[in-house]
Amino acid sequence: MPTLRRDPVTGRWVINPDGKQNQLPSLIQMEELIQKGICPFCEGNEKYTPPEIFAKRVPGAEKDSPGWQVRVVPNISPALKVELELGRRAERMYDLMNAVGAHEVIIETPRHIANLADLEVLQIKKVIETYKQRISDLKNDLRLRSIFIFKNYGKRAGSSPIRHTHSQLIAVSVTPKNLKEELKGAKEYYDYKERCVFCDMIKQELSTKKRIISSNFDFLAIAPFASRFTHEVWILPRKHNADFENLSNDECQNLAILLKEVLLRLKILLKDPPYNYILHSAPNRTKRRGRSWNTLSQDYHWHIEIMPRYTRIDGFEWGTGLYINATTPEEAAASLRSVKL
Amino acid sequence: MPTLRRDPVTGRWVINPDGKQNQLPSLIQMEELIQKGICPFCEGNEKYTPPEIFAKRVPGAEKDSPGWQVRVVPNISPALKVELELGRRAERMYDLMNAVGAHEVIIETPRHIANLADLEVLQIKKVIETYKQRISDLKNDLRLRSIFIFKNYGKRAGSSPIRHTHSQLIAVSVTPKNLKEELKGAKEYYDYKERCVFCDMIKQELSTKKRIISSNFDFLAIAPFASRFTHEVWILPRKHNADFENLSNDECQNLAILLKEVLLRLKILLKDPPYNYILHSAPNRTKRRGRSWNTLSQDYHWHIEIMPRYTRIDGFEWGTGLYINATTPEEAAASLRSVKL
Repeated sequence: MPTLRRDPVTGRWVINPDGKQNQLPSLIQMEELIQKGICPFCEGNEKYTPPEIFAKRVPGAEKDSPGWQVRVVPNISPALKVELELGRRAERMYDLMNAVGAHEVIIETPRHIANLADLEVLQIKKVIETYKQRISDLKNDLRLRSIFIFKNYGKRAGSSPIRHTHSQLIAVSVTPKNLKEELKGAKEYYDYKERCVFCDMIKQELSTKKRIISSNFDFLAIAPFASRFTHEVWILPRKHNADFENLSNDECQNLAILLKEVLLRLKILLKDPPYNYILHSAPNRTKRRGRSWNTLSQDYHWHIEIMPRYTRIDGFEWGTGLYINATTPEEAAASLRSVKL
Repeated sequence: MPTLRRDPVTGRWVINPDGKQNQLPSLIQMEELIQKGICPFCEGNEKYTPPEIFAKRVPGAEKDSPGWQVRVVPNISPALKVELELGRRAERMYDLMNAVGAHEVIIETPRHIANLADLEVLQIKKVIETYKQRISDLKNDLRLRSIFIFKNYGKRAGSSPIRHTHSQLIAVSVTPKNLKEELKGAKEYYDYKERCVFCDMIKQELSTKKRIISSNFDFLAIAPFASRFTHEVWILPRKHNADFENLSNDECQNLAILLKEVLLRLKILLKDPPYNYILHSAPNRTKRRGRSWNTLSQDYHWHIEIMPRYTRIDGFEWGTGLYINATTPEEAAASLRSVKL
């Protein structure tokens, strides 16, 4: 059974997937397919994935068959399983629980395109709407505390051998360390100032302008003040909003426009770099475990963090959480702004 | 001027080295040397490094010339500089300071050997004694709050192009996020139980035995309960001790024996994998900034974390701090124990 284990010192959680999972015949078949040049994510190859969880499709098109625009399927080798009991327990001084959760793959286009930057704005909008739909749906299960959507593009960023553009969703029954830290920091700032730290950051960036890469009516793309990675970019909604799934139709459109633009600027400036992005959005509200999330709507602000990965993370940065970045965000913003689109 | 910037949400620090540093003629010369097959870390090539900070050498041998056993030199492209003022300041809502600190390279043998595992125990003991000496010396500068010693072995672990075995030391004027977290977790456990969490962990591991890889009179090597990486290993002193530099002569010897043994087991089992190790030791005690470290000697316990790096860290693990590890520590310990040395 897959488990979640907690480090007794730092409170960091680690997922141990079920060992047998890795010998799944379907996973081996998947690798064979790719070697044969068959892409399981292309339209017409629906039979090579597990049955779909959700799809945007043209009217009349059938489930698990051609005619879809965005398609969501379970990860073929899921790290978490939704049908388990939470099973919180101790092994003497250590804490563990069953790895309850969801692990899904969002196939972002029926066509064999590798980089989201190369899709049309309307298609990217459909991807964003799919993110919204999946998060809203999974939040109905109150056991699923945190829901992450992330993308690994390029081998160095940890991408799977399937090059067809896709993102992943992981929903999990704990609040991972980094999200907890962010929520705590944002709450402390709010408690002290009675203002959202992200809203303050947006105001300051709009006033100094030197770290702004681009913006439109609803969104702002900046090189954050303490960028960990060279040419790191954050996209933030200009209007305060803790939950990504609250996005309006217009906002979906404007986010698609800005996300495409930023990814294109990175692609041109850095010559198609590997990158990760990860959606940071408020966790599922419950009052379980005596914690109240009453202020969360005021003090947290969803955003997307995009991290080009052409420098390697070495032992020092890994072990300490202290980063060395040779390019200042002011330089990064200036060069990203100057890209001709 | 190199700066340290603080992320306003999470409190994470990022070093921005001086931009000009990267065009240093010495750094370009270094790359040319390596291309010509000249190793700047070999005995006889002392002139290719900056003047040494410290060395263990045979009696009578001169500084910056042959006859040394372990040699410490400044990093040729240092991320931090010791001669700066702290200069803590604000840029409106953001916080920054000058990047005060030290960045040194510990050359672990005069011979051209790549992996520390292949040195003799007596030579590894000299390396450990050098770590001790450098930490003790730098702790005299009370501005240097945290001192890290780490090793990047193999390209995937972020190693420099110089293959000659070496580690690095970074001393910095802040407490990086991960160390802060560890200190906080250990203190909370101590406040609650009045026992050191690491001592409790050692007792439990000795009693259940299933995650022990090896041990000797002074040290224990375990696969930690919540291992982030496949075949992650921690080496801990069996006797409570917060500060690495308190090591006795016998303990240096026993640490050398166990470190060599663990690295050899990893090398044989995983076929010479890339790895990082990082020394976790208590920060420099001062009462600056209103913080008292009175209990630190009781509640913290130094240790070395060794992380084989043959799985890539993807966007999810990076962004969330939640790890997926397909090998349980019990399986990892069993296979590392079974290696024939």
